[in-house]
Amino acid sequence: MLIGIPALLGPELLAVLRAMGHGDEIAIVDGNYPAEQDANRLVRADGLDLIPVLDAILTVLPVDDFVPEALFRSSVKGDPQLIDQVHREMEVVCAKRAPGRKLVAMQGADFYARARSAHAMVATSEPRLYANIIIRKGVIYPQGTGKE
Amino acid sequence: MLIGIPALLGPELLAVLRAMGHGDEIAIVDGNYPAEQDANRLVRADGLDLIPVLDAILTVLPVDDFVPEALFRSSVKGDPQLIDQVHREMEVVCAKRAPGRKLVAMQGADFYARARSAHAMVATSEPRLYANIIIRKGVIYPQGTGKE
Repeated sequence: MLIGIPALLGPELLAVLRAMGHGDEIAIVDGNYPAEQDANRLVRADGLDLIPVLDAILTVLPVDDFVPEALFRSSVKGDPQLIDQVHREMEVVCAKRAPGRKLVAMQGADFYARARSAHAMVATSEPRLYANIIIRKGVIYPQGTGKE
Repeated sequence: MLIGIPALLGPELLAVLRAMGHGDEIAIVDGNYPAEQDANRLVRADGLDLIPVLDAILTVLPVDDFVPEALFRSSVKGDPQLIDQVHREMEVVCAKRAPGRKLVAMQGADFYARARSAHAMVATSEPRLYANIIIRKGVIYPQGTGKE
């Protein structure tokens, strides 16, 4: 374990997050998602629910602020008008860790295509359905720019 | 995920447990243990505490009843006379999943030598110290023997 880094971020996940660059995306998916099939780089988080994994990742991963949208979630039955409890919990975590950044609900097929093209994917054991989110990595601004 | 198998048992851990035979041992260790250094076969369980991992493993892994002792734990400061809360919680899980089998407190150096020689090791993020346990795998008796 390391000082100041959540223990949930194991060596493999931490290395993947550190290796990602600006604009790279990571999908965090639920326990039923075909992650082994879809992932370009798969990190398993068996036994963990989605919300604590999302929260831990956002403690170290900057969210892209070069683009209007950088946080995306899947939708109940593919319909962006529908929202489940797990999506509300995602919104709470995103509001805390990436204030002001909107969590965009995507149509089913669009979300899955984007998840498949993500740099990496984290397979949780989240039992709730449609509990998937994509984060687009931003930049760490240099010190003295007022944005760090 | 699979029917009747705890989601916490991911594909790698499940495969390791299934591959183990009678008398093979598996150590489940806390977040500070040098598992990468010591393990013959390492399975990571980052973000998980020890007790739920122990409980999930014992839902599918039979404990050896050919020998008088098959469950071993490390001790506070290496002293088997000392017991911490996490050891009491181990005892509760062992009593539930392997009734009648004693959890043996081992002297520090003896425990670590045994853990190093175990077939496999699971590295949890358990924050409490001296929170390590070794399970010796038993047999699945054939149907009709009255022991299955």
